[in-house]
Amino acid sequence: MNKLDCQSASEIVIFGALGDLSRRKLLPALYQLDACGLINEESRIVGVARNEHTDEEFKATVLENINTFVKESVDESVLARFMARFVYVKLDMKEVSDYANLAATLATSDKTRVYYFSTPPVIYGDICDGLNHANLIADNDRVVMEKPIGHCLESSRVINNQVSRFFNENQIYRIDHYLGKETVLNLLVLRFANSLFTNNWDRNSIDHVQITVAESVGIEGRWGFYDEAGQMRDMIQNHLLQILSLLAMEPPRDLSAESIRAEKLKAVKALCPIDRSNIKDKTVRGQYADGFLNGVAVPGYLNEEGANTVSKTETFVAIKAEIDNWRWSGVPFYLRTGKRMPVKHSEIVVHFKAQPHNIFKESYSDLPANKLTIRLQPDEGVELQMMNKIPGIASQMNIQENKLDLSFTDTYNDRRVIDAYERLMLEILNGNQSLFVSRDEVEAAWTWADSIIDAWHATNEKPKPYAVGSWGPVSSISLIARDDRQWVE
Amino acid sequence: MNKLDCQSASEIVIFGALGDLSRRKLLPALYQLDACGLINEESRIVGVARNEHTDEEFKATVLENINTFVKESVDESVLARFMARFVYVKLDMKEVSDYANLAATLATSDKTRVYYFSTPPVIYGDICDGLNHANLIADNDRVVMEKPIGHCLESSRVINNQVSRFFNENQIYRIDHYLGKETVLNLLVLRFANSLFTNNWDRNSIDHVQITVAESVGIEGRWGFYDEAGQMRDMIQNHLLQILSLLAMEPPRDLSAESIRAEKLKAVKALCPIDRSNIKDKTVRGQYADGFLNGVAVPGYLNEEGANTVSKTETFVAIKAEIDNWRWSGVPFYLRTGKRMPVKHSEIVVHFKAQPHNIFKESYSDLPANKLTIRLQPDEGVELQMMNKIPGIASQMNIQENKLDLSFTDTYNDRRVIDAYERLMLEILNGNQSLFVSRDEVEAAWTWADSIIDAWHATNEKPKPYAVGSWGPVSSISLIARDDRQWVE
Repeated sequence: MNKLDCQSASEIVIFGALGDLSRRKLLPALYQLDACGLINEESRIVGVARNEHTDEEFKATVLENINTFVKESVDESVLARFMARFVYVKLDMKEVSDYANLAATLATSDKTRVYYFSTPPVIYGDICDGLNHANLIADNDRVVMEKPIGHCLESSRVINNQVSRFFNENQIYRIDHYLGKETVLNLLVLRFANSLFTNNWDRNSIDHVQITVAESVGIEGRWGFYDEAGQMRDMIQNHLLQILSLLAMEPPRDLSAESIRAEKLKAVKALCPIDRSNIKDKTVRGQYADGFLNGVAVPGYLNEEGANTVSKTETFVAIKAEIDNWRWSGVPFYLRTGKRMPVKHSEIVVHFKAQPHNIFKESYSDLPANKLTIRLQPDEGVELQMMNKIPGIASQMNIQENKLDLSFTDTYNDRRVIDAYERLMLEILNGNQSLFVSRDEVEAAWTWADSIIDAWHATNEKPKPYAVGSWGPVSSISLIARDDRQWVE
Repeated sequence: MNKLDCQSASEIVIFGALGDLSRRKLLPALYQLDACGLINEESRIVGVARNEHTDEEFKATVLENINTFVKESVDESVLARFMARFVYVKLDMKEVSDYANLAATLATSDKTRVYYFSTPPVIYGDICDGLNHANLIADNDRVVMEKPIGHCLESSRVINNQVSRFFNENQIYRIDHYLGKETVLNLLVLRFANSLFTNNWDRNSIDHVQITVAESVGIEGRWGFYDEAGQMRDMIQNHLLQILSLLAMEPPRDLSAESIRAEKLKAVKALCPIDRSNIKDKTVRGQYADGFLNGVAVPGYLNEEGANTVSKTETFVAIKAEIDNWRWSGVPFYLRTGKRMPVKHSEIVVHFKAQPHNIFKESYSDLPANKLTIRLQPDEGVELQMMNKIPGIASQMNIQENKLDLSFTDTYNDRRVIDAYERLMLEILNGNQSLFVSRDEVEAAWTWADSIIDAWHATNEKPKPYAVGSWGPVSSISLIARDDRQWVE
C-alpha cells in the first residue's frame, strides 16, 4: 500500500516552531518526508510562535534551518514545494483570545489538523484551552505531545487530563523518539518474524537480558533542567522502559496500535515493584566525578558550571528489573544508563541459557552461552554469538565463540539513515498510533519509577561517584555480579 | 592435553604404499602431522608393496610425492626427520610366506603396529592371514580399512569377518573421510555447544533438512569400476548417511567413541525402510546425458569411453529419508547427490518451521522460515538466514531475509586447510575411534541401502536422464515438491 493512500491532507500546526526541537528535528523530518513524496500535496505547515514574523521572514528561518540540519544536499524542486507549504501565525500560547489568529488561518480548510506541541509541557493545557476557545478541535484532529509527560505520576496525570479534556486517547500521539529508531523497530521483526527467536523468547531459553544506553556527553549546559530530572526520569522511565516493553511483551496478534499498546502495557504493569524494602538490592545510582575522557580532563557533575554542589541527582542508574509473569519469571532485565561514560554505546544483549551439559570440556571448560546482541548505536546491527570449531589439527574439538553478524551499516550502506522523527511524523500523518505511548503505559511507567525515586529519597544517600570516562560506579558491577553474571564488555 | 601425550610410538605399516590413495593423501597427511610435531619421534613408516625397491628408491618415490602433493612449501628439517622414518618391505600380499619379510623388519620393535589397508578390499582377508601367519598381530595393534567395505550387506560381512577373525572391533578403524572434514566435525560443535540449536533440534522446531552433495566431475575414467557401484553405493550409503547420522543422532553423553558411535548407530537404525512398496514415492535415480558444462559439450554417462551403452547404473540419487523416532517423526531428510552437476557444491540446510502466524502480512505475505546452512564446500562456513527490517522510510515494516554469516574462509583465512586424512590419521595414531565407522553402523547402512537397490532392480526401470550441467532429473524436483517444499537454489 502506498503510504499516501491512507494519508489525508493535513494542517500541520507546530507550536514552538522556532524552538530547538522544531528547528533541528521536526522541520528536517518534514522536508525528508516531502522529498520522499510522503506528504499529501495539499498539506500545509503552520508555524506558531510568539514572535512577530511575516510568512516570508518565517520561511527564511525555515530555509536556514533546513540548510543547516539536513545532511544531504537539498533538492531545489522539493524545496520549492516544501517552502510553499509554510504559513506563520503569531500567537501568545497562554492568551486564549490570540487563538483567533490561528482560527483565521485555518478557517478556509477542512483538512485534518495535527497539533504538534513542541513546547514545554507546562503550557499544553493553555494550548488546549486556546484551541477549544477558538473552536479548533474536531474529532479527526490529532495532537502530538513531546516528552517529558510530567515529572512523576501525579504531574503526568495533570498534563494528560488537561489534554484529554479536549482530545480522545485515539487522537493523542505521545512521542518517545526511541520508538522511531530503525533498530528498535527491528526488535519487532527479529522477535516475531523468526521462529528461532519467537520459540525461544522466554524463561525456558533466556537467562537474562542486558540493556545499556551509555552516553559520553554530560548534561550539555542544561544543569538546572537536568538536575530536576536525573537519569531515572530522563532515560529509564521513558526510553529504557520502551525498549524493555518491546523485548518483554507477549506477541501481539497484529501490528495494530491497539494490539501493540495493549501488550506493551501489560509488560510494564508486570514489572516487580522496587521500593524502600528492596531498593538497595535492585538499583544503583551514580554521579560522575572529575575524570578524563579521551585524555581530556572533564569536570564532575558537581563541578559543572551552574551546579549546586550538594546535588544528589543521579547521572547514572543501574537496575535489576524483574517481570512478574509466566514468560519472564526468574529472568532479570538489567538496565544501565549513564552520562559521561567512555563512549556513546547502546545495545541490547539477550543472554540465552548456558548448556546444561558440556561435552567439550577438554577444550572449553566453561562453555559460553549463546547471545543475541542488538546494537542500537553507533554501528547499528545484529549479532548472534555462537560456538564453532576452530579449523585446525591441533586438537579434535578446539572450539571458540564467533559472531554471526549483520551490520546494518555495511549491509545497507547505500541507504540514508532515517531519523526517528521522520518515522514518527509519517505515522502521525498516517494516523497510526502503534509507535506512540498510551496514557496507561505512561502512568504504569511512572508508577514503577516513582516508587524507585521515593525509595532513593528515603535512604537520603548520595549517588555513588564514578569517574568521568568509566562505566559507572563499582556497585553497578556488584549489582549483577551478585547474581553471578557480568555486564558485557 | 598435548596430542602426543596419548600417542605411543607406532610402526605405521601402509599396504599399497605406492598406490594412488597413499601417494596423494596418506603420505602428505603424515608429512603434515610430522611438521606439526604430532607424530611420536620414534614412529616409523613401513611401506609395503609388491615391487622390488631398496629403501632408498622407495624414499625417492615418497619424496617425489611429497613435493607433488603437499601444497605448502616443504620444510627441509621436517623433511629430513620425516624421510628418516621410512622403511620399505617388498611383499606379495596374497602370499602368506612373504610376510616373514615384514616380520623381519618389525621384529626389533615393541611399538604399536598400525596396519593401513590402502588396497582393494578383496585382499584384506589375505593381509590378515599373512599378518597372523607371521605372528604380527597383538592386542594393541590397529588396522585401518578404506572404503568400500563391501558392495552390499553380505559382502561387507565377508570383509568384516575376514578382519575380525584377527582383530577386535576396538582395533579396527573404518575410514569415511567425510568424518575428517572440518565442517562435518563442526556439526557436532554447532549442535551441542549452542543452546539455541540444541534446544531446537527436533520435530517441534525443524520442518525438514536438505543434504546436497553435488559434483561437477563425471566418473573420471573409471567407468567400469563406477558402473558396478553407482551413486547409491559410492556416495549415499557412506558419506551422506554419515552426515545424516551426525545431524540426527541423539546428543551423546560425551565425545567418546563409544557414545558417539552408539548414537549414530541408533539414528541409522531408525531410518524408515524404503523397499518395493514405497520406492517410487521416496527415491529418484538419474543418469547424466549429453549436455554442456560451462559451455563445453560433455558426453553422457552412456557415451563415455568404455561405457556399456545399456547400463542402468545411476549417477544421481535423490531420497526422501525419514527417521522413525521421537525426535524426528514427520521431519524428512531430503538427500541428493549426483555427478556432472553444474558446480561442485555440498551443503546442509536445516529448515526450521515457518511461523504459525504472520503479523507482517502487509509487507511479506509468505514469511520465509529460518534456515541454518552449513556449507561443506566450496567456501566452508555457516549461515543463519533470518528476517530483519529493511532500514528506510518507505513502509513501517518492510522486512527481508538476511544472512548472519560466518565464512570459515574469511574468518580463518590465515590457516592452512586441514585435509580430512590428516585428522583421521592423527586420531588413528592416538587410538581414538570416534571418527570411524563401527561394524554395526556399516551393516545398518547397507541394510537400508540394499533394500533401496533391490527395489530399483525390481522395477527394472532405467534411471531418469538429466542433462550434464543440470541439477538432476525433473523427478527430483517433484519428489520434494509433492511435500510442498523446494530444494534450496
